[in-house]
Amino acid sequence: MILYPHLDTNAEGHLTVGGMDTVELAREFGTPAYIMDEDVIRANCRTYLTAARAHFGADALPLYASKALCFTGIYRLVAEEGLGVDCVSGGELFTALRAGFPAERIYFHGNNKTDADLAMALDMGVGTIVVDNEDELDALHALARAKGKVQRILLRITPGIDPHTHRAIQTGNVDSKFGRAIATGQALEITKAALARTGVRPVGFHCHIGSQIFDIDPFRDAADIMVRFIAEVKRETGFEAEELNLGGGLGVPYLAEDRRIDYAAAVAEIAAIVRQNAADAGIRMPRIILEPGRSLVAAAGITLYTVGSVKEIPGFRNYVSVDGGMPDNPRYALYQSQYTALIANRASAPKDYRATVAGRCCESGDLIGENMPLQKPQRGDILAVLTTGAYNFAMASNYNRLPRPPVILVQGGKARVAVRRETYEDIVRNDLSE
Amino acid sequence: MILYPHLDTNAEGHLTVGGMDTVELAREFGTPAYIMDEDVIRANCRTYLTAARAHFGADALPLYASKALCFTGIYRLVAEEGLGVDCVSGGELFTALRAGFPAERIYFHGNNKTDADLAMALDMGVGTIVVDNEDELDALHALARAKGKVQRILLRITPGIDPHTHRAIQTGNVDSKFGRAIATGQALEITKAALARTGVRPVGFHCHIGSQIFDIDPFRDAADIMVRFIAEVKRETGFEAEELNLGGGLGVPYLAEDRRIDYAAAVAEIAAIVRQNAADAGIRMPRIILEPGRSLVAAAGITLYTVGSVKEIPGFRNYVSVDGGMPDNPRYALYQSQYTALIANRASAPKDYRATVAGRCCESGDLIGENMPLQKPQRGDILAVLTTGAYNFAMASNYNRLPRPPVILVQGGKARVAVRRETYEDIVRNDLSE
Repeated sequence: MILYPHLDTNAEGHLTVGGMDTVELAREFGTPAYIMDEDVIRANCRTYLTAARAHFGADALPLYASKALCFTGIYRLVAEEGLGVDCVSGGELFTALRAGFPAERIYFHGNNKTDADLAMALDMGVGTIVVDNEDELDALHALARAKGKVQRILLRITPGIDPHTHRAIQTGNVDSKFGRAIATGQALEITKAALARTGVRPVGFHCHIGSQIFDIDPFRDAADIMVRFIAEVKRETGFEAEELNLGGGLGVPYLAEDRRIDYAAAVAEIAAIVRQNAADAGIRMPRIILEPGRSLVAAAGITLYTVGSVKEIPGFRNYVSVDGGMPDNPRYALYQSQYTALIANRASAPKDYRATVAGRCCESGDLIGENMPLQKPQRGDILAVLTTGAYNFAMASNYNRLPRPPVILVQGGKARVAVRRETYEDIVRNDLSE
Repeated sequence: MILYPHLDTNAEGHLTVGGMDTVELAREFGTPAYIMDEDVIRANCRTYLTAARAHFGADALPLYASKALCFTGIYRLVAEEGLGVDCVSGGELFTALRAGFPAERIYFHGNNKTDADLAMALDMGVGTIVVDNEDELDALHALARAKGKVQRILLRITPGIDPHTHRAIQTGNVDSKFGRAIATGQALEITKAALARTGVRPVGFHCHIGSQIFDIDPFRDAADIMVRFIAEVKRETGFEAEELNLGGGLGVPYLAEDRRIDYAAAVAEIAAIVRQNAADAGIRMPRIILEPGRSLVAAAGITLYTVGSVKEIPGFRNYVSVDGGMPDNPRYALYQSQYTALIANRASAPKDYRATVAGRCCESGDLIGENMPLQKPQRGDILAVLTTGAYNFAMASNYNRLPRPPVILVQGGKARVAVRRETYEDIVRNDLSE
């Protein structure tokens, strides 16, 4: 096992994913390439669904936050596993629709939905729209009325929690582009406004406290604040929320030393907290929705690159350049995110070398990581970066006109292309000749 | 004039670009959209070419660093203006070729060219390849020999200059993923290696010291160091460089208070410095190449968005959400880059409001800028962000599955689509159905 149980080495000392030799995969599909272990994604879906049904009730519906990794096939996979999805744009709705995903199991998110997005969602029959603000509420009400519909909605609420200090505070997330804050009274205001609009039917509230969270305490705070808000709304308006969506955010390990979460145990704990809070506040237990994204798909993915050059700068450091970089993985450039990397064709050898892994873009900041432990690399080696299933393909660009890598799904000893490698023709497709 | 002479207001108080009403452009082409003033790009090309010919000699060839803004039409435009281009990938070479750009005027850059890239460049007849490292030198030599060619090359050298401290130092840029450093002796080593390879013909050296530089001093340092290196190489090997490529990096103003550079004066100054240094070092005056990217195209471009929501959070700040964001402009998320923004349909009104301009992605960091001075916005307004001609379209992604905006060129009172808006069909094009 290397970081995760589905990653290992074989007799040749090559890295394997789901039992398949990554050096063979690189040869067959070329590099760079995203390789995803389908069984890992399915197992994660089942963990959440089983735990949610056991602790939230038989009608529990975990939602896959599809912005983490979005292509047609992932919606089919998630549909087969019985989850719902969270979509954040017309493009995600379109992809889900193309995959035949059941529209009633879609929650439509976003801080700025256009009129075209809202009309598309109404026409598709999207189950629930998570309304972010008054401008959107008015636009949705008008569109729904014009179409003779009444749209099921949640309202996005800002509870004011900083997940990394584990405290409910009146700063931090109150100052957010998302939703309306309880602390400012604006959450109650938009709730009253929504209850007065005939084009929408509010059923509850949504909040999201952050990402890469390894501690249940921020969820405890959020559940506490949100349940008290539900009770306040009931007192003020008579409306009792039937659904409480606590968003996503549970973390995944990128490095061997990172903490690991038992997702099933977390679901059980969140259920117990909400149940206790609801009893204390004198409201009925709401249906709880969770929206895992990263924790469903990140671990499943690795990226394979070919090493192009190795430079040792005496007195400074070593650089190894690969045939991808920030266009396929901008997370180090954006957030200085840490990854585990290794030389796939010598994966059993000790990591007795350190190098900064650089991408191939003409930009100094185009790095995958700095001073990463590695087997000593050379031109032609296959370099694997682990835990790239989330926010890599989803964020990929054509910076420097690099074609985006394919997404290869492995399962049961077979590999298949889920998203084709972009071609140069794809890249110039929309350039007009005059 | 608003920041630049080609941006102004008309009788309706609307922002105009090249005399065209941006509110009309938004209506005609939709939002988000990149609007580029073609005359500005052409004028910048002429400024560089005229100055280079006057001060570097009649055979001077400024190169457009096409990674800044890359699509088929820009290569045609640059070709018409008589410049060369700097390409950094197979994708850029392909685009230049598709545009019919003369291959002999292409310089091919990059810290990690694959064998496929090098073969493509050789087959296309690319004029000059800028060799970054020994691995690449060996690969290029072998490929050129196999094809019976001798490739004209420059060698990428790291002079060890931090452009923002204006000093030649032995840290900073010595520690770079690009090129080989003079300070470590590796620059001389790769030069000797290149001179011994029959598949390549070295003609000189390339260096690049940074970007957004507003001061000529770092170029003075670079010229000094590079000319002394040329002299050292001549003493050690007898090879006297005929070409010195000093890269790009001259800055452009993004804010009214930013400094402004007279590019023609900068070219004259650089020529004088190199001439003096060459005379002092006892070498012939090399042909000087400059590679402006940002300073040719950044000012020409603006991005038009539609405002979706305005939120005022009492005690905190205001947010205005637009229908684009980090997928079409990741520079605030990546570098906290500053921009000037305004409400295009009330451009003559005073900016008596401040708001954080947020994109529409489900990510807190998806911002265009924080606390930007603006006219007070409301849903439906057109918000313009200025100076987006460089590193916006070039870096655009489909994060959240948002289609990339079109590139619209305006010239002589007419607007035409240079790059079509992406469709949802484009986004799922490479998703396979099984």
